[in-house]
Parts: sequence; structure tokens; C-alpha cells
Amino acid sequence: PKMKLPGQEEFEVSSACENVPTGELENGPGSCLSPDGTSDTDRGDRGVPTDPLLFIQLNELLGWPQALEWRETGRWVLFEEKLEVGAGRWSVPHVPTLALPSLQKLRSLLAEGLVLLDCPAQSFLELVEQVTRVESLSPELRGQLQALLLQRPQHLIQPTGTRPCQGSAHPREASHNEEAPLKEQRQNPLRRKLPPGAEAGAVLAGELGFLVRPLGAFVRLRDPVVLGPLTEVPLPSRFFCLLLGPSTLGRGYHEMGRAMAILLSDRQFQWSVRRASSLHDLLTALDAFLEEVTVLPPGRWDPTARIAPPKCLPSQHKRLLSQLREVKGPSAQHGALAEDRHGHWPHAPSPELQRTGRLFGGLVQDVRRKALWYTSDFLDALHPQCFSAVLYIYLATITNAITFGGLLGEATDGAQGVLESFLGTAVAGAAFCLMAGQPLTILSSTGPVLVFERLLFSFSRDYSLDYLPFRLWVGIWVATFCLALVATEASVLVRYFTRFTEEGFCALISLIFIYDAVGKMLSLTSAYPIQSPGSPAYSCFCQYPDLGGNESQWKKTEPKDRDDISSMVRKVLGDFSSVLAMLLGCGLDSFLGLATPKLMVPSEFKPTLPGRGWLVSPFGANPWWLSVAAALPALLLSILIFMDQQITAVILNRAEYKLRKGAGFHLDLFCVSVLLLLTSVLGLPWYVSATVISLAHMDSLRRESTACVLGEPRSFLGIREQRLTGLVVFILTGASIFLAPVLKFIPMPVLYGIFLYMGVAAISSIQFTKRVQLLLMPAKHQPDLLLLRHVPLSRVHLFTAIQLACLGLLWIIKSTPAAIIFPLMLLGLVGVRKALEWVFSPQELLWLDELMPEKERNIPEKGLEPEYSLSGDTEDSELMYQPRAPEINISVN
Amino acid sequence: PKMKLPGQEEFEVSSACENVPTGELENGPGSCLSPDGTSDTDRGDRGVPTDPLLFIQLNELLGWPQALEWRETGRWVLFEEKLEVGAGRWSVPHVPTLALPSLQKLRSLLAEGLVLLDCPAQSFLELVEQVTRVESLSPELRGQLQALLLQRPQHLIQPTGTRPCQGSAHPREASHNEEAPLKEQRQNPLRRKLPPGAEAGAVLAGELGFLVRPLGAFVRLRDPVVLGPLTEVPLPSRFFCLLLGPSTLGRGYHEMGRAMAILLSDRQFQWSVRRASSLHDLLTALDAFLEEVTVLPPGRWDPTARIAPPKCLPSQHKRLLSQLREVKGPSAQHGALAEDRHGHWPHAPSPELQRTGRLFGGLVQDVRRKALWYTSDFLDALHPQCFSAVLYIYLATITNAITFGGLLGEATDGAQGVLESFLGTAVAGAAFCLMAGQPLTILSSTGPVLVFERLLFSFSRDYSLDYLPFRLWVGIWVATFCLALVATEASVLVRYFTRFTEEGFCALISLIFIYDAVGKMLSLTSAYPIQSPGSPAYSCFCQYPDLGGNESQWKKTEPKDRDDISSMVRKVLGDFSSVLAMLLGCGLDSFLGLATPKLMVPSEFKPTLPGRGWLVSPFGANPWWLSVAAALPALLLSILIFMDQQITAVILNRAEYKLRKGAGFHLDLFCVSVLLLLTSVLGLPWYVSATVISLAHMDSLRRESTACVLGEPRSFLGIREQRLTGLVVFILTGASIFLAPVLKFIPMPVLYGIFLYMGVAAISSIQFTKRVQLLLMPAKHQPDLLLLRHVPLSRVHLFTAIQLACLGLLWIIKSTPAAIIFPLMLLGLVGVRKALEWVFSPQELLWLDELMPEKERNIPEKGLEPEYSLSGDTEDSELMYQPRAPEINISVN
Repeated sequence: PKMKLPGQEEFEVSSACENVPTGELENGPGSCLSPDGTSDTDRGDRGVPTDPLLFIQLNELLGWPQALEWRETGRWVLFEEKLEVGAGRWSVPHVPTLALPSLQKLRSLLAEGLVLLDCPAQSFLELVEQVTRVESLSPELRGQLQALLLQRPQHLIQPTGTRPCQGSAHPREASHNEEAPLKEQRQNPLRRKLPPGAEAGAVLAGELGFLVRPLGAFVRLRDPVVLGPLTEVPLPSRFFCLLLGPSTLGRGYHEMGRAMAILLSDRQFQWSVRRASSLHDLLTALDAFLEEVTVLPPGRWDPTARIAPPKCLPSQHKRLLSQLREVKGPSAQHGALAEDRHGHWPHAPSPELQRTGRLFGGLVQDVRRKALWYTSDFLDALHPQCFSAVLYIYLATITNAITFGGLLGEATDGAQGVLESFLGTAVAGAAFCLMAGQPLTILSSTGPVLVFERLLFSFSRDYSLDYLPFRLWVGIWVATFCLALVATEASVLVRYFTRFTEEGFCALISLIFIYDAVGKMLSLTSAYPIQSPGSPAYSCFCQYPDLGGNESQWKKTEPKDRDDISSMVRKVLGDFSSVLAMLLGCGLDSFLGLATPKLMVPSEFKPTLPGRGWLVSPFGANPWWLSVAAALPALLLSILIFMDQQITAVILNRAEYKLRKGAGFHLDLFCVSVLLLLTSVLGLPWYVSATVISLAHMDSLRRESTACVLGEPRSFLGIREQRLTGLVVFILTGASIFLAPVLKFIPMPVLYGIFLYMGVAAISSIQFTKRVQLLLMPAKHQPDLLLLRHVPLSRVHLFTAIQLACLGLLWIIKSTPAAIIFPLMLLGLVGVRKALEWVFSPQELLWLDELMPEKERNIPEKGLEPEYSLSGDTEDSELMYQPRAPEINISVN
Repeated sequence: PKMKLPGQEEFEVSSACENVPTGELENGPGSCLSPDGTSDTDRGDRGVPTDPLLFIQLNELLGWPQALEWRETGRWVLFEEKLEVGAGRWSVPHVPTLALPSLQKLRSLLAEGLVLLDCPAQSFLELVEQVTRVESLSPELRGQLQALLLQRPQHLIQPTGTRPCQGSAHPREASHNEEAPLKEQRQNPLRRKLPPGAEAGAVLAGELGFLVRPLGAFVRLRDPVVLGPLTEVPLPSRFFCLLLGPSTLGRGYHEMGRAMAILLSDRQFQWSVRRASSLHDLLTALDAFLEEVTVLPPGRWDPTARIAPPKCLPSQHKRLLSQLREVKGPSAQHGALAEDRHGHWPHAPSPELQRTGRLFGGLVQDVRRKALWYTSDFLDALHPQCFSAVLYIYLATITNAITFGGLLGEATDGAQGVLESFLGTAVAGAAFCLMAGQPLTILSSTGPVLVFERLLFSFSRDYSLDYLPFRLWVGIWVATFCLALVATEASVLVRYFTRFTEEGFCALISLIFIYDAVGKMLSLTSAYPIQSPGSPAYSCFCQYPDLGGNESQWKKTEPKDRDDISSMVRKVLGDFSSVLAMLLGCGLDSFLGLATPKLMVPSEFKPTLPGRGWLVSPFGANPWWLSVAAALPALLLSILIFMDQQITAVILNRAEYKLRKGAGFHLDLFCVSVLLLLTSVLGLPWYVSATVISLAHMDSLRRESTACVLGEPRSFLGIREQRLTGLVVFILTGASIFLAPVLKFIPMPVLYGIFLYMGVAAISSIQFTKRVQLLLMPAKHQPDLLLLRHVPLSRVHLFTAIQLACLGLLWIIKSTPAAIIFPLMLLGLVGVRKALEWVFSPQELLWLDELMPEKERNIPEKGLEPEYSLSGDTEDSELMYQPRAPEINISVN
């Protein structure tokens, strides 16, 4: 279970995939501008959209001179798979490596050899006749060679995911001229993994002693045709390459064959060679390939090590850029860099955040924009993936409702409870999914609001106020203030929420969770002490307090234990780990029959607080002026709701999630304020968007490219944006109210354990925590963070120290009687961040945080030059171009 | 805490470092044969032994045209460190990567440029004058260039491990002609990391607009001289390279400079260029470098990704081999492969294991061989490292003594106890260290012997025998049998102990540990039940059984919890984790005041069993014929002792630990049998060599190369073989007997927890366990194991299934009344392994296990050919040549 928070991806070098123009991302990491400048829409291909995927196979001639046979020993789409002869299986896909001489030998063999472009052969027989029409061969040898070429090759056809089928691994010899694809070729499971329209390229290489000089032939077929049993999948072959010769070269033919296959599996080379009109073009394409290879020096890298496919492929965009740089010099790159930074910064103001200047102007625009998509918001949900998303999010939502409901019930002495939590979640969530600007958002009781409600309750208890009527007035005022914020388009200010603010907020909430969970459990330990022989409980008195203490200790270790399961199993269980942990905790509790404090659940469908109806009376026992005085806490709560809601909305609408239907910051806030009014009237908990659970919702709805063969990472295409999954989840949640009799078996320590875990998980996921760790770490042991390559360590420490000081101040305020004003101080974080511009250079803030709106516009003109012109290194600037692989792989509370 | 067991390293591809001839390993992984065929003794260098290490620095000319300055932007020894300008620090060392064109451009620049070999310049000024004596420069330009070259470069001198010192990071401009090394150069901490005699190479590169054509110069100084402030460390410079030119090339000069530096940091190139006598030689060396580079194709690998230095470097031996192959074709490689397999297989019979054919011949030879080293066995201990080794092993030993002593005391009803354990460990251990063939061995009570003693005790209790006298006779017979084994040189049979046997033995013992620990704790749970409200213990009776149950649960989770600490902290605490866990458990127990069963320790220095003296009477209450009947269990125990002792000895004396003083299998067994007799007479526990603790001992005594700059992995030089550390450890252990009053605070569940942990750790570390996991894993998710590349999955599964069946059989025998014969069955494992030769091909057994002596001799001639000639892949055979990095990083019980 790992939460990703804003900006976390770019903090780690290993997954540093940043800052790609939004337009680019639409087409996945492999996509690019084609060399003529038009953008591709085809999946990952560089040429015109119709260039098909190429499957390349190397058939090697083995057994010279006794028992000649062709055997498929390698295959490629982008990465390489090798035949492991002894084990009788294909290797895992890996990045191919070559020795330079084999590429050079291949080049000279091709240069002297036969090159047929747009060969009109219609069958393998015709093709073989054409390629053997070489002067150096006597008619007798030619016949011998043709017979050999027509000999059926041996393929290892391996059923996916299971052990190789013995039958097909040792195929029979076939008769010549067998042009029709064989049954085992047609049944090859690999075929299903290749997209329709894919073409094949066959490379035949080997040592053939009766040739006096090497024979090289490269053929591009005019019309691709299935060459009988030549390739293991019956794809129409477009390219055919023959590399045979006497045995002087040793293993050279194998390596040359691999070199040819690796060349053909390069998309840039494919693009060129599909359009080549002469041998010269072919060699130019090969030279262009050579220009772009990465060279690892000998003696420092084991050339036989298999390199696993990288998580994110270098973008073709970058290759284009580096070519541009070659041509135009460094200025071209700088220009492109500046332009990209300017135009496509993930936090660049999106159209939703442009101020219209009219009252409710933003809201009206949001409604207009979202109305266009309203029908599709339901039609787009018609996909099987949405079923599993519903199940997953439903479980997360009820866990959340139980947990928060239980804690809220305890914090408010039963004024709120699990029943209210379920009902409120169902009503508010469903209404939000139907109306909101960003229907992927899952509404939930969140930590900060819970903290505020707890403060509010203890305040009203201290002054003997009637809680629910007081709370109703707070709700009315908050709704009013929020409507005012909507009217004045205050949501455009979210641009000032940088990572500094987001992380400060997150860290505070996490710490509150941890502190509360530990505190609660310690208090349980004193209420239900651990029994020791010397303690009074063991004397002969007949008093036995409940024995909850040991149980709570058990729970405390639980979140840690979960991290232990470190196998495959881990991944499968990971998604439901918290649900499982809850069930395990409850099961243990009831199995051992421990007397732990349990969740208080009403057995009937009526408010938890005895004697109140579903509607809260507007005054109750409170004096009338309290309805006015409630405006003060309401002001603070409004700030809290605004920040909680909008920080979540900013994160959800980040560019890397490739949302097509746009955000609706104003509309979302409007919905939240209306629902807040409704829940106040009904005496239900208050709800805002919950970051983690909403991200999990998005994650379960991600669309990915389906055809991903041979190790290529799946490309992320976007999110199934629709309203239905959320709606169904909340309808199910409402129906679960009747589960209440089951819920009363949940011991409170289990809920504390889950909260402790949520706090620890959230605080471990933010950059701030990593920077705090840096404070304590000697430089030698520090990880190679992108950040540390660009900002002096002392400045990083200063930034962290300021953040720590802010956090400390917030914590102190929260712990004093002034606690109720702490939402105001949260807002103060934005001010502190603004003030940091006097302390840090824009360059440093760019790496440590991100830029605020005004500064951002200034950067390209002046800010970046000094470093980039001095730096002896293009690496980092290029790292910025890697596509940001959206990792929203989150398991929820 | 991770234990490594035999053969584990080669099972994992990532650390697949195998089969290097022993002679090679002596010199560390970087060493090799020099091209003229003589073996190097110098550390890691390829040339004649006197070729010094080369430190290369790239000074780049920045700021054209306004503010020209030289700045050091990269440095190399083997790996690359880059200046991170923004952060003001050096990058982590990484494998350098290049673009191919920069190497080619460098080649042409050198070919047209000035090459001075054996330049007699004595100072930087002279050198500058020589390299600027180029026709194309006008006298005016020459003066300008000279002034520029003499300008003092800026170095980032970074104190190791701390943040960069601001003062030295921004050095002042220096006056010209300053030839003496500067203070800050002399104080550079990098200097201490470079070995004495190291030389420098300086590459100066950059864009210089006033030049009309590129200027390239390569200088080898006849006498290396410190070139003033040119390099950051005041080393005498041997090489100097200048790459300047007009701005047409863009960033080309930076990349060319890097290419030159990377070339110079290649040991093969260094060797050639030190001996070059002309430009032609230089270019030939460059071409040879190009022949050997590894090429990564574009589009599948991000060329800007930093590759961490590999754990084990490709051996230069391999480079030589691949050159051989280039020249002679594949047969050369095959020959070399066969020869190496034959001669240097880790389990190949070492001279110690050659049968002499005389009675006690092996023992005599062992004594003779070890006598030569006896003085050095004490002198070699005079090294500070030995102090820490003593502390570490002492803690491990007393933990072991407490644990085994406690369990043994419980198993034998106090006939043995903690006091006996300490005394016996001290006496036997110290004596063994003084006399044994392999003094690195730590003697200890081991699991199998404990199991046997438990069986023996329950047998003697069942038949109402006087245990200690019976045990004395068993000991007498065992000593006799073992002496017979020594006399007949039976130890040469250890060659038949393959991994199959070792792992079967290990798995069985681990399972016994786990089963016993869990069983003991479950039995505690029923004796001291978990208290639940409904149970009778909670009624009003005044009976309170001890409350140990919960404590034992705590302990059970402990071993898992220990694995949680996953930070740096983890590593530091890891070495003492079990000691810490014990202390924590004891602390918690006494803090909570739980009434757990405690370790029974006598408070006085007298035998644990009341009423017996230190000498065991030979008959006691037993009939006389029992002394003869004791021969039967003694026979079985002899087999057990022989197997336990020799399996450990085989592991300790493996070739990869590079022991120089040789093994002493016969002498070790002799010592064990004598000590067994002694401990039987004194009624102390029996001792044999303990694998894990002895490996930890060796690990704490490993010698490594000290100078390892810039990311180069430390090379393993061997072990400090001596007798003193062990001796001191056991003397300290003896002194710890007076700690007995403290030991009685240890609760038994803590000891059970430690045993559970040891069992789990041992069983997780063996290949067998991984293969069992493979049984349950779909092929798609299987790791890329070297084994699986060569053996069909079905055969791997068959092998695992047979091993599982053997283990099941052993377990059944152990659980029936026939338990006492199970040592015999252990020996049966060797027979089963022998029988497997009818089921599996030698090829398969080579990968799954290892070969038994006879088969091994046959393999090179016939066994390997089929696969190696068919395989389209040299990778695996080359993987076999990687030096086995001895990972004996073990944390002990």
C-alpha cells in the first residue's frame, strides 16, 4: 500500500519521468512527432499513422557441417527474447546489447550484398529464387542453397505462462514448398499479443561452409506475404534478411543476425527503411542508428548482463530533440526547453482556473463545460473494468465509513455515529457524483474535518451547548461562506497551493492521525491494564476489568506486520490489505473472546443519539445569538473545507492523469457547500473530497494500451471518466446500512490500528519526509536524488528546517486552547511559501517545490540560463523530458 | 540477517559470479593475465606489475566568449563522477556512457592533431609551450592560448562525506606560472583514497571561438610531473590531452573530453597507450577499445540514465578470452571453458582430500601442513580488525551457549545446563582453536546433536538408565569410531557431499527447529492459557496460573518484526539483531513483570544436576553390558557428527574464500573426537563445528583492498587466517560463567523465538526453498534464474519433488520410534543423490546440484558439447567466468 502524493514522482531519479507536453502524453510514451513534423496518432509508432508494428525473428543455421537445421534463436518487437536451449524456453524480454564490430560487419556485408527494395515476390519460393540469384554462386550451389532455405525451421512455441509444450518444442521436419501456415503457427499464443495488422521481419543467419564468400541479402517485400512456416506466427512478412557465409567468422553470423534484428526493431530505423529507395538510404539509416547508440566502455560493465526493460522508455521526442541539437547546436535545445517549461508545466493554469471576473462566472462556465459531457458520463461507464472498480472502491468506502463513523461517534459522544456515517456517505457521495465537476472524486469524512468536529464538540460540551443545533448554524454559515467563495471565483487561488502547502497540510494531518491512534491505545492500556502477577488485579478481590490491553498491543503491530509479506502474494493481497487486516483483527478478537471496547452501532435505523429526529431543530436549548456567533467557527471551518477540498481537487486534476473532460473547481466547491448544508440539517457528518480514496478510484479506472508484447511497458492512455461507478458505490454503501448488526463486532483498537497505518503511510509518502531523513543522513549514504543534483545540500536543509518549523508551530497551536484557529494557520502556509521567494532563488524553488504563478512566467527568460549554460551535463535537462508515467497505484485506508 | 549456504550465489543471476580459477582470485576481480601471458600480481592492473593507477580529470573551458574559465567537470578512476553545478557537489560514481559519434570525432581529432609520446617537459609551462607549437596558430594567438591554458582551473574540493566546503568550492583566481601544488590541493581528502604511486591524466576540453580549426593534442610525459594546480590532487601527471576548437561543434568538446577521459580510464587502453610508440599505436588502442564496447540501441534505453557500478566487475580474464575467441573462433573458448571447469571447480578435490592410502596418513599430512603456519597463526592476528571480530563472535557465541544450554537443560531434565554449556563451549572451543586444522571454525552445540541428545535422554529415561554414565560410554564409542574414520582417511568422502546432501541436511534441521519452537510455544499456551473473560481462571477462585501465554505470542512475532526495520539503521542493527531481540524480550518480560518460565541457571559453579561431581562415573547405576550396548547409538551419533562436522568444513573451505593456509579435514575430525571424549567424561555438551557462526567469524575477518575510489567495488583479498580470535572468544566465554546470575532473567519463550528465527532464516536461504516456491509459481512470474535458463522447468520440478520426498521420509523416520536411526538415513541422502545420475543428465545435475567426483572428470570431454554448440548465446557460458564475490555476510543466531 503506497500512496503517491503531489510531486513525488519527480523526486525519485529512478522514476524521474517529467514534464512532457500534454499533447504528447495523449499518445503514450512511445509516441512522438514524426520526422516531417506531424504528430502521430498511431500507438507508439514514429512514421505515418499506418506504419504497422514489426515482429522480428532470427532463424539461425546450426549444425554445420553434419546436421544442418534452422532454428529460431531470438525474437524482438522492441526488446529481445532469446531461446534458452537447455531449458527449452524463451528468456524474459530484455534490452538488447550488441558488440560494435558486429554492427560494422553487418554494414559491410549489406554494402556488398544484394538489396531488393519492393521485391514483388508472392511466396517464399519466389523470394528464395530471387535472393539466390547471385553471380558468385554456381547453379549447383544455388540449388543446394535454395533447398536449404526452404527447409522448415524449428520454432519453440511456448504456451503463455505455462511450461513449454513438448510436442511443439520438437517439431517434425516438413516437406519443401509448404507455403500454407501450419496449425501450430496459427495456434501460437503469441499471435494474440500482437496487434492486428502487425508485420513480420525474418532474419536468417548462420555459418555455411560450402560458400566461398559471405552472402548478404536484404529484401523489402512490396506486398507483405506469409512466408509459410518461416516465422513462428503466420504474419505477413515485410522484411527478409539473409546473412550466410563460410566459417571464418565464427560466431559472427549469429551476432550479425542479432544486429540486423535489433536494427529492424528500432522504430526510427523501421521508419527509414520502409521509405528507403536505394542501398544508400539503407546504409544511411544504419549510420543514423549508429549515431544514436549508447556506448558502455569495456571493463566497467559486464556486456553479457541482461538489462531489464526500463519502466519508462525514452521518448521519441527526446531523440528528435537530440537530433535537432546536433543540427542547430545547443541553442535549439535551450529554446525547446524554455518553450516546454512555459507551455506545459503541470501546474500551469488550466482554462478552468482563468478568472472570468463575473459573479458566479466560474461556476457557470463549469456547468456549461460539464453539461456537454453529461450523457457520455454514463455511457463511458459501460466497460467491464468499471465492475471491479465498483467492488474495490465500495470496500474502501465502507471501511472508511466504519472507521470515521466509529471515531466520530466516540469524539462526539454519540451525536454522530456509524449509522449517520453510512447514511451521510451514501447521500452526499451519490449526490456529488451526480452533480459535481469532477465526478471521479469520492466524498468522505476526512481527517481535518474530523479534527475540527471534535474541537467543536468539546467546545460545545465545555460551554454546555446543545451540539447539533449549534452545528447546524455552523453548517449554514459555512455553506454561505463557501457560496461566497464560489461567487467570487476564489478557486482560482488554488494555483498558489504548491507542494510546500500540500505537504505541510498532509504532514500535519498524518501526525494527528498517528498521535491520536497511539494516544487512544495508550489510554486503553491504562483503562484496561496489562495484567501482571504483582498488580492488585491479581489479588483475591473479585474485580476484573475488561482485558482489552493486550488486544490493543496486538493491533499496534499489525500495520507493520502487513509489510512483511514480501512475495507475489503481497501484491495480490495488497489491494485489500486493510480490509483483510480489519477482518483478521475482528476474527482474532472474537476467537479469543477478548473484552475489547466495541464499535457502538444502533440496531435500528434511527439516529444514534437517543431522542432526536432526522431533522435537527434550528435552536434546541441554545440561546438565539448563538446562531450568529456560529459564524466565527464557521469562518475557520470554511477555510479548512476550502483547503481540504481544493488541495484534493488540484491533485486529482493534475495533467499527468490525462483527464479529457476537464475539472470543475467552482462547481465542486458549490456541491460541497450545498451538501454541507444538507448534512448539517440532517445531523449527518460533513464531507469533502478525500485525496487517497479518489486517487484509488482513478487508478482502478485507468485505460492502458492492450497490446504490449515482449516486455514493452504498457502505455497509459487516460482514465475512464464517468459518473456511474461512484454513484453505484454510494448506492451500495447506502444499502449497507442494514449491515449494522454485523458491524458491532468490530473492536475499537482495530480502527485505531487502521488510523495509525493511514497516518504512517501518508507521512512516509511525501517528499518532506525524505528531506527530513536527509537531515540525519551523512552525504555519502544519501540517495542519488534529482533534487540533490541541482540544489546545494545546505539549501535543501534550510528549506526542510523552515517546513519543520511551520509544522511545529501548527502543532503547538493545535494543542493549545487556540486550537480552533488552526485552519487560519494552514492558510498561513501559503503566505510562508510566498515569503520563501525572498530566501531561495527561483531555480532552487523549482527543484524544492514548484513555482507560484507569477514567478513561473518569468523563469524561462532569465532563471534557468546560468545553470544550464554552466552545467557540463545535458542529462538533467533531458531527464525533464521523460514522460511522466502516472503512478497512481494506491491502496486505500 | 541473511545466511548464505553452499551454492546459493550461483543460483541468483544478479550475483552470478562463478568459477574463476583460484589463481586469478588471489588478485581480486580486476586482475588478469597481461596480454603477454604473464600473470599480474599488482592490484587490478593489466600491464606489468608497476603500472600505476591513473586518476583522470576533465577540465572544461566554460564561458566563451565573455568570461573564460577552466572548471573541473568530471573525474574518473574506473567509474565516472560528474560535477553537479547547481548542487555544488560530485555525483555518485557511475558507469560512464558515451554517444558513439563523440568517440569517432575524438579519433579524427587525434589523428589530425599533435601527439607527443615521451614528452620531456618538466613543468606545466614547458608542457604548454610544447603543445601550442602548432603551425596553424599565429604567434599572437599562441600567446593568448598559452595564457589561457595557464589560467588556474576551478576545482570543487569536497570533504568526504560532508557538505562541500564553501571556501574551496569557489577558489580565487591564481596568478600564472604557479607550479607548486596549492594548499587546498594537498588537503584534498581524495588524495588519501588514491594509492601511493598513482598518476594523473588531465583532459582539457572546450569551445574557444578564436581558433579557426580544432586543436587536438595528446601528450604522454616521459617523467610524470605535478602540473601545478591543473589537477585537483597534486599527483604527478602522466597524460595530458587538449581538445579545443571553434564553436561549430556545440557540446561536442565536452563529449569528446569525456570520451578521452573514459578511454584513459580503461585499463586495457592505459596498458596500450603507456607502451605506444607512435600515433598509429594510439589509434590502434582506440580501435581496440571500440571493438570491445557494449552498444545499447536507441529507443530502448535512456542514454542519460546513470548506471550504478556493478557489484562484480567483468573480469579482465573474460576480455582476454573474448579476444582469443575473436582470433581463434569458438573452439578456443570451448577449450578454455573445459579446462577451467576441470581444473577449478569449487568442489574439485583439493590436495587435502587426496587419499594417501596409509593409516592416519591424512592426519599426518594435515599436521605437517598446518605446523608450517603455526607461528603465523598468532602473528597474523595482530590487526585492529581482529578486535571487532572478537567482540562480534563473542556475543554470538554466548547467545548460542545460552540458547543451546537452556534448551539442552530442558531436554535433559537438568543433566546438562547453561553452566555446562558455557564451560564446555569455552573448553572445547579454545582447545579446538589451538589444535585444529581449520582454526577459523567455531565449535558449538548444533541442532542435530541437540536432537540426538534429546532422543538419547528420553531413551534412557524410558528404560530408567543412569543418563550421564550411559552418555559417557556413547561418547567413548563415538570417539573410537571417529578415530577409526580419521585412521582410514574417511574424510576424503566429503567430495560426495553435494549441494543435494547439504541442503537436505539443512532443510531437515531447520524444520526441526521451527517445529520444536512452535510446538514448545503452543504447549506453553495450554499450560499458561490466554485469559479470556469466560474461562474458569476468571471466576472468583483465588487461583492464578502464571500468565506466560501472551508473552509467548509476543515472542512469536518478534523474528518477523525484526525484518521490518528497513533503513540504514537496519544494517547497523542487523549484526546484533538477535542479541538485541533477546535483550528486548527479556526487558519487556521484566518490565511487565510477566511470570514466564525462566532459564534455569545454577547460582554456584557446580554441575547443574545436584549431587554429581565434575567427573562422570563410568557405570553409575547402569548394568555393565550397557557400556557395550552404547556402541549402537554411538555408531549413529558418529555418522551424525561426521556429517555435521564435514558438511561445515566443506563449506568453510570453499575456494571462493581464498584461504591460503589450507584445510585440515582429518585433523579437525580428530580434534572433534578427542574433545567429544573429554566432554563426555566431564558431562558437558557435545560440540562440532557450527556452520553459520563460523562463516560469520570468517566474514568478520575478511581482508579487502583499501584503496577503492570512485565507486569501484572493494576487492576481496582473503581471510585473516589465525587462531587467536577464536581463542580469545572462548576465553571470554569461559569468563562469562560468572554472568550466570544475570542469565536467569531470560524467559524461555525468548529462546524459543530465537530458535524459530534461526530455523526460518536457515530454511529461507537455501536453493531448495526457492525451487519449492517455483513449484507453486506460474512461469510468467518466475525470476530469471540462471538455473532456469538451462534446465527445463519440468526437470527442475522433478528434482525438487525427489528432494521433498526424501525430506518427508526423513521427517517420518524422525517422528516414529525408529527416530534414533535417522543419522543413517541422512547418509542415505548421498546414496539417493548417486542414484539421481540415472534420472538426470550430467548437464542438468551440473545446474541443479553439482557433480560428484567421477562424473566431474567426464564432463568436459563429452557432457557439455551439445548445449554449448547449439546455444545461440555465449552469455551463460561467460557468466560462469564472473569472479565469485564471496558474500559471507552473515548475521548469526
